Amino acid sequence: MAFRPEKPAAKTPNIVLFFIDDLGYGDLSVYGALGYKTPNLDKMAQEGTRFTNFMAAQAVCSASRAALLTGCYPNRLGISGAFGPNAGVGLNPKEETIAELVKAQGYATGIFGKWHLGSDQEFLPLQQGFDEYYGVPYSHDMWPLHPWQERAKYPPLHWIEGNKPVKEIKNLEDASELTPVITEKAISFIKRNKNKPFFLYVPHPLPHVPLAASAKFRGKSERGIFGDVMMELDWSVGEIMKELKAQGLDNNTLVIFTSDNGPWLNYGDHAGSAGGFREGKGTSFEGGQREPCIIRWPGVVPAGRVSNKLLSTLDVLPTIAKLTNAKLPKEKIDGLDFSALLKGDDTQTPRESFLYYYRKNNLEAVRKGNWKLVFAHPGRTYEGSLPGKNGQPGPSPEDHQFPKALYNLARDPSERYDVLEQNPEIVAELEKIADAAREDMGDDLQNKTGKNVREIGRAGRK
Amino acid sequence: MAFRPEKPAAKTPNIVLFFIDDLGYGDLSVYGALGYKTPNLDKMAQEGTRFTNFMAAQAVCSASRAALLTGCYPNRLGISGAFGPNAGVGLNPKEETIAELVKAQGYATGIFGKWHLGSDQEFLPLQQGFDEYYGVPYSHDMWPLHPWQERAKYPPLHWIEGNKPVKEIKNLEDASELTPVITEKAISFIKRNKNKPFFLYVPHPLPHVPLAASAKFRGKSERGIFGDVMMELDWSVGEIMKELKAQGLDNNTLVIFTSDNGPWLNYGDHAGSAGGFREGKGTSFEGGQREPCIIRWPGVVPAGRVSNKLLSTLDVLPTIAKLTNAKLPKEKIDGLDFSALLKGDDTQTPRESFLYYYRKNNLEAVRKGNWKLVFAHPGRTYEGSLPGKNGQPGPSPEDHQFPKALYNLARDPSERYDVLEQNPEIVAELEKIADAAREDMGDDLQNKTGKNVREIGRAGRK
Repeated sequence: MAFRPEKPAAKTPNIVLFFIDDLGYGDLSVYGALGYKTPNLDKMAQEGTRFTNFMAAQAVCSASRAALLTGCYPNRLGISGAFGPNAGVGLNPKEETIAELVKAQGYATGIFGKWHLGSDQEFLPLQQGFDEYYGVPYSHDMWPLHPWQERAKYPPLHWIEGNKPVKEIKNLEDASELTPVITEKAISFIKRNKNKPFFLYVPHPLPHVPLAASAKFRGKSERGIFGDVMMELDWSVGEIMKELKAQGLDNNTLVIFTSDNGPWLNYGDHAGSAGGFREGKGTSFEGGQREPCIIRWPGVVPAGRVSNKLLSTLDVLPTIAKLTNAKLPKEKIDGLDFSALLKGDDTQTPRESFLYYYRKNNLEAVRKGNWKLVFAHPGRTYEGSLPGKNGQPGPSPEDHQFPKALYNLARDPSERYDVLEQNPEIVAELEKIADAAREDMGDDLQNKTGKNVREIGRAGRK
Repeated sequence: MAFRPEKPAAKTPNIVLFFIDDLGYGDLSVYGALGYKTPNLDKMAQEGTRFTNFMAAQAVCSASRAALLTGCYPNRLGISGAFGPNAGVGLNPKEETIAELVKAQGYATGIFGKWHLGSDQEFLPLQQGFDEYYGVPYSHDMWPLHPWQERAKYPPLHWIEGNKPVKEIKNLEDASELTPVITEKAISFIKRNKNKPFFLYVPHPLPHVPLAASAKFRGKSERGIFGDVMMELDWSVGEIMKELKAQGLDNNTLVIFTSDNGPWLNYGDHAGSAGGFREGKGTSFEGGQREPCIIRWPGVVPAGRVSNKLLSTLDVLPTIAKLTNAKLPKEKIDGLDFSALLKGDDTQTPRESFLYYYRKNNLEAVRKGNWKLVFAHPGRTYEGSLPGKNGQPGPSPEDHQFPKALYNLARDPSERYDVLEQNPEIVAELEKIADAAREDMGDDLQNKTGKNVREIGRAGRK
């Protein structure tokens, strides 16, 4: 037999990861949004696969971002909620992020947008595998103009370039530059890195409040400023996609679009829509965590497909790792590789279950397939309270007592009909999953506090 | 100038109209259904346009069907609810149906499935423009096995061929032939009419209860018998589409798929899902009337498009009339031609408003754009009552008192946040639309009973 050289490894794709802020399940036209259109995202869905059962790992900003970038439930990292400017903690620099994994494979890495995984220098993106950073360190409502926190609490907000603040964002007019500037920086990154593989992370700070759109988009939608902002975000996606095409990179780029958590509903006409799912941001009901997700890679990911498989932002890291031949993190992660499903093998069901942890370490619900067991817990509710108008928030009581309940998400996607008493076997099965999670990561609701939960902070993992 | 002959009229398309029974907004994979797949309908959406804002004209069977076939609000026809076997009335034979309009254009016309517009001979489809009929005269729970009506009330149920009963449907085993037999008859109609234009109306009786699937599909879904039935209906659509292709008719056939009303939620695991919209069948909340709608006509209707424009089953007749060069009915109709929008002109907004009439003549709500004003009314609610299991219905109180409320469907698609007090100008605008409707068709809620409402029955329109 003749000697055969090994087949050269297929070229690994560039990755563009859009992570939008407080975008609800119902906020893209292709998911049914009303009052404005998102033609670029609708086109992405036509050219790629649209997911309908895709879960953010937790319903609040920092926790959700930590999970996306590490493939771990945020409580496994010791992270919950949203870091304030003076938190003094962040994602442990020892955690391995997607950026670090692909950087080891020779990828250029850039983040343009909102970080929110610690604002002290040691926690900033350059210390987590990113070559370049231009963006805001945390939510842009964490500034002196915050509508309900005491003004003195939040220091001035700055654009950060690399490790340094470069320009203050003083008012809504300044904030209206968020989307165009991030777009411009992302496009510049593509231009400069067109000849090597790259990982471009675009965590847009909008449509998180306070809403601000460029003059070009203001007043353009039938949905007020929220629709204007959505139109501008869709424009941004379109510009970045256009640049990929212009550089001839379109067919070798995996583009992922999703969001960190559901809409902040008490902001009323300044909030998005969960598209019929119950509750929103800051809750473990589907409205808090079920997100739009579109993935496109021409010729590899089937075009025009809709997938209803249960997946999570947790699964992005191992999937990217697989597609870029990167090594997985050394520590245990929770994400599951769905690359085969993504490429079109619909027999794959990579994720069977999902854990809904919230607050510090409350296991509020567990899911297996289409069944969701909600444990008795105190939590935020938007129901029964009048949302705000014109950017002013309405009330969102945080200590509503939710009873234990079982929902069948297949016939009751909006979690309205508790069928706990009718299904003792299902409950028992879900309780087992919960018990295993408690053993692994603890559960404050059951007074089994996080024995295995990694701790975070300046001191690093203990 | 040389003489130019007139351009010959473009060939008018064949029409296939699927009208499914009690199918909810969330019941197709492409609309997010869980527990089973609908690959043929998902493919139809990829190859055509999927609508997300498409309203059945009323949330119950006979009324909805009358509206579809005539382009009139059912109360304009004097029809409400569902006709029982012994109703003695039906759609007035003098009303002009889609079948009559296209028959005048030389179309062959066939209906295979459920009629439910009067079961006495004078009301049957052959008297309303159809050349052929094979199907059931009304819902197949109107039989001696009905779970909660007194047994004696309903006579035996028969398949009807033309004007004659031909075979009794005695039990669930017999009912499991509904989908395959209707499919076979529809395919035979296509084969026999391949050389002339045709209008094929396929109002499948399922997934209305009682659910029954062929042996081939039983136990095949993860969603119990409901999922099995949905898989079989999807198969049926696929077989009919396959036949169009086999006969070379694919590119010259307009296919429309939609449903008569939302899911009958108190049937629990035997009911579909409204996909997060509020309530279901028998209510004027969005869950009762917002329906999946997919329209396909290769080369004419844009492929892979999602349209969020407000439309209704009312609009099907004038649109078909336009596309087939048929004359509109002589009497006033409520439907609006959306053929230009359908063909890709997204600047078109044919429908600005919609009236939610229910019960005999109650104007329960009005809509303009994304605003919906609900009037104080008594009505069915499924909320707070435990749905049934294994085909047994749970309670569905009919006289819940709903208060007057205003909803913004763009940011609150599930009608949870009443913003009436915040928006007096919007309320005033919607009240005007309601007043015009009351002037035109009356409103029992306001004691302005139908002065202009046509009357129905054996005597014909008075």
